[in-house]
Amino acid sequence: MSTFDPEPKSDSVRIIPLGGLGEFGKNMMVYESADAIFVIDTGVMFPEEDMPGIDVVIPNISYLLDNQTKVKGIILSHGHEDHIGALPYILRQINVPVYGTRLTLGLAENKLREHRLHNQTDLRVIDDESVIEMGSFRLEFVHLCHSIPDAIGVVIHSPAGVLLHMTDFKFDAHPADGRLTDEARLRQLGDAGVRMLLSDSTNAEVAGFTPSEQELERVLDDLIGRAQGRVIIATFASNISRVQQVINVANRHGRKVGVTGRSMVNNTKMAIELGYLQAPPDGLLTADQMNYLPPERVVIVCTGSQGEPTSALVRMSRGQYRHLRLGKGDTVIISAAPIPGNEKMIHHTLDDLFRLGADILYDELFDVHVSGHGSRSDMKHMLELTRPQHVVPIHGEYRQLVLHARLAEETGIPAEKITIIENGQTLEVGPDWVMPDEVVASGRVFVDGLGVGDVGSVVLRDRRHLARDGFLVVIIGLDQENGEVILGPEILSRGFVYMAESEMLIEEAKEVVWDVLERQETAADVADGLHAALGDYCYRTTGRRPMIMPLVVEL
Amino acid sequence: MSTFDPEPKSDSVRIIPLGGLGEFGKNMMVYESADAIFVIDTGVMFPEEDMPGIDVVIPNISYLLDNQTKVKGIILSHGHEDHIGALPYILRQINVPVYGTRLTLGLAENKLREHRLHNQTDLRVIDDESVIEMGSFRLEFVHLCHSIPDAIGVVIHSPAGVLLHMTDFKFDAHPADGRLTDEARLRQLGDAGVRMLLSDSTNAEVAGFTPSEQELERVLDDLIGRAQGRVIIATFASNISRVQQVINVANRHGRKVGVTGRSMVNNTKMAIELGYLQAPPDGLLTADQMNYLPPERVVIVCTGSQGEPTSALVRMSRGQYRHLRLGKGDTVIISAAPIPGNEKMIHHTLDDLFRLGADILYDELFDVHVSGHGSRSDMKHMLELTRPQHVVPIHGEYRQLVLHARLAEETGIPAEKITIIENGQTLEVGPDWVMPDEVVASGRVFVDGLGVGDVGSVVLRDRRHLARDGFLVVIIGLDQENGEVILGPEILSRGFVYMAESEMLIEEAKEVVWDVLERQETAADVADGLHAALGDYCYRTTGRRPMIMPLVVEL
Repeated sequence: MSTFDPEPKSDSVRIIPLGGLGEFGKNMMVYESADAIFVIDTGVMFPEEDMPGIDVVIPNISYLLDNQTKVKGIILSHGHEDHIGALPYILRQINVPVYGTRLTLGLAENKLREHRLHNQTDLRVIDDESVIEMGSFRLEFVHLCHSIPDAIGVVIHSPAGVLLHMTDFKFDAHPADGRLTDEARLRQLGDAGVRMLLSDSTNAEVAGFTPSEQELERVLDDLIGRAQGRVIIATFASNISRVQQVINVANRHGRKVGVTGRSMVNNTKMAIELGYLQAPPDGLLTADQMNYLPPERVVIVCTGSQGEPTSALVRMSRGQYRHLRLGKGDTVIISAAPIPGNEKMIHHTLDDLFRLGADILYDELFDVHVSGHGSRSDMKHMLELTRPQHVVPIHGEYRQLVLHARLAEETGIPAEKITIIENGQTLEVGPDWVMPDEVVASGRVFVDGLGVGDVGSVVLRDRRHLARDGFLVVIIGLDQENGEVILGPEILSRGFVYMAESEMLIEEAKEVVWDVLERQETAADVADGLHAALGDYCYRTTGRRPMIMPLVVEL
Repeated sequence: MSTFDPEPKSDSVRIIPLGGLGEFGKNMMVYESADAIFVIDTGVMFPEEDMPGIDVVIPNISYLLDNQTKVKGIILSHGHEDHIGALPYILRQINVPVYGTRLTLGLAENKLREHRLHNQTDLRVIDDESVIEMGSFRLEFVHLCHSIPDAIGVVIHSPAGVLLHMTDFKFDAHPADGRLTDEARLRQLGDAGVRMLLSDSTNAEVAGFTPSEQELERVLDDLIGRAQGRVIIATFASNISRVQQVINVANRHGRKVGVTGRSMVNNTKMAIELGYLQAPPDGLLTADQMNYLPPERVVIVCTGSQGEPTSALVRMSRGQYRHLRLGKGDTVIISAAPIPGNEKMIHHTLDDLFRLGADILYDELFDVHVSGHGSRSDMKHMLELTRPQHVVPIHGEYRQLVLHARLAEETGIPAEKITIIENGQTLEVGPDWVMPDEVVASGRVFVDGLGVGDVGSVVLRDRRHLARDGFLVVIIGLDQENGEVILGPEILSRGFVYMAESEMLIEEAKEVVWDVLERQETAADVADGLHAALGDYCYRTTGRRPMIMPLVVEL
């Protein structure tokens, strides 16, 4: 298998992860047969600390572009950002039909509208009775419980047998919308024979079953029942299930619910229209009502659970939210787990809320959130229902994939039938073998403003350098006749020292420039000399290494 | 109390927090009477995400500098960075005697040596039998259990009564060094009457008592007993107690212990010399022995529990550690809680370790750490032992101070006798009153390379701007006679676009420059016009806002 065939054989399938395996977010999986390619999910990833200025990170899809004519469509498993966020960027590069359940497509359409792509996209609604044929693939869908309604797993009838792509799921006996993960169907598939299970690894570090949404509803009931003033509940904008729970509980306690935060309002509106969210009989509160109704009649659901600077909750915490002033007597509930990397922002928000005198309930104090992802026992249950020949852990950082693999081994699946692959690592599934094959182009494409992919490692390296120590530009004009200095040295600098109080340092730097000018002849030599001498000077005097850029021109 | 008297009255004391209240790290408290000032702790804080290029953050001590002649000394409560890290920077500004226990001063001296200040510092050893007089203050010391040996609390006999400054502590019945928090003494002080308790709030979010170090020793015993290959344990370099536990446990299992990571080696060596760490009978392993002894005979304690890029563990995880190649069969134990903000770095390190095939035990999977800080029940026990009239929560972010205050209220202390103050907020303790007074200069002083305090909000704002969108410098030389352009336009840019592939954009930007030149007359007008026009052009074409710096010179 050392040479990479241009396509899989007619009895084989190639699986190509382009995102989400071995890193957080950005889920994207490609399935390829001899005659067709389809994609499951098009997620974004949020930039990490070492990617300054980047808005979002999307998968590299050059493999799809190289095989463009074979690509039949994109399946969206559910409406979360790490599964649909890159859709507009992907569709701009490769416009194919997009399949998803009604709610998922509703969320996707909101997103496409923002990018003005909704009129040119072929959106096709599916449900758990749909069957799609794509070349030699036949796809069916299984309902899964998750922290958003209308999530599906994909049953892939392929030339190499049945592959199950089980994205984010949990087994919840009492989900907010009453629809269970379809265990009977999964068991039936297991009875008929599953060639390979690809299954969510997110919570591979968490023991037991993930608690039911019902338990959370009980907690919310207790907290809202006891609260004296207003109750503010922050969660993810896409967490439609949580909004439903709040509406249910608030109603029981004679409170009315308002929703705030742009994305949350949009999602809620759409979910009500599509019938995925049962609005209260008298509708949701308007902004005015939130403020003027007696506090004990009000519950507000809002964005900001991750401390996002422009979110409703963060503006409330800083007293900058027009519609609502929080204070003593109000109760704030943070009903979401911190995404790794957001802890500091969340802590600052909590501190600000405490300063306002409100009561705050958050995960360090109280269980006011349940995960949408199944824990180890859920993962094990999925393995037991489907009894696959082969297992590939998907969705998770590397350690979670490994822990999931070890769990699969514990359930009796032989180690050699469990394969860990990371983004770009293709896996061939043949009639009687499963083998890793070539590594294809994959990885991170940076979106920065209007640019998609133009900012790469060089620009980011420069940004990190500038962030650390700033820059120093020195400009010199030499007389092209006699080499005399007729312009400068002029020095421009930012981010290095406080210029208003660094006259001496700048004057001394100019002395360094004159020294170099005396020693060097040509403009190029001067530029090189300046780079070295100014670098030394800055480091010696400040311990910093600004980016030095000499511009020597002959006039 | 609206006017701020230059000094407290002879029967009063002023308490001035300069660090550690309402934010993480950087602990520093000032006590002032009519005739003396002393300081407890001189901590550093590690820079947050919005402080690019900053090495460490130290407290602003202008209040001490303004009252220099009154400052009698600095007491160090224990040897952790957030209590001693700023010492060299503070002593350079104000050289006063430094008091601490032997181990604490040993750690402080290591630090002063790095800064070449050890020969000019007056270090004075204290223990829990010492008494120090400073003007009208008489200070005594109480042994406290913490995650480092030789920690003390300070008993302040003052004109306003007895104030207890109880820095980081827990009640541990079986600490690694066998020395308990001195409960009898605390109870005695309570019997005699405590005017005010200032007490650690770090774990105010955590219920119950913090588990004993002994429980952790049991866990380590179990894990090391079961391990087949080498065992690598990562923890903080200052966690001398953890090193002792590992030595004890390793010895029982016939394993030898090596220590690696520069700061850990230094601290261990010093602690053995001073008798705070009982070395194994045959000494510690050398680097060579770590590598060549049979794996089942080796335990290695190292730095890197926070994923610090240059630490021993991180280098091991990347296969870049000369002395040791990790792989299948090795067990890595991360015995430290993540400091908020470090989660991503830790996760990346864990992923790399999993890639090497090692077994990894870390806090998401297993309790392989106990906190050095008392939890809510410890905090309550401290309140019950000392029965203070007044309480001031110290050491903690704002929410932790509030939670500690509420806990104190639950134990029966009236709300009006519990005061939350933040950095800079002075508190006056008189004979029969306690009142907040003026706010003095406090806050963050940034250390960047050799500069202490020269980088402030302007430079940081520029660095953040440069990090996000880079810069674009445009240089034009005008003939001073006729206004003709004789130099440029030259454009220098970094961090904005990838210059090697942006020729078109740069050419168009030059067109924008020519447009401005046609419309404007004077050099100043040209500069202004360029700023606006190039800013617009960049945003329109890229959606980015680089820092625009025009330089227009007349030649």
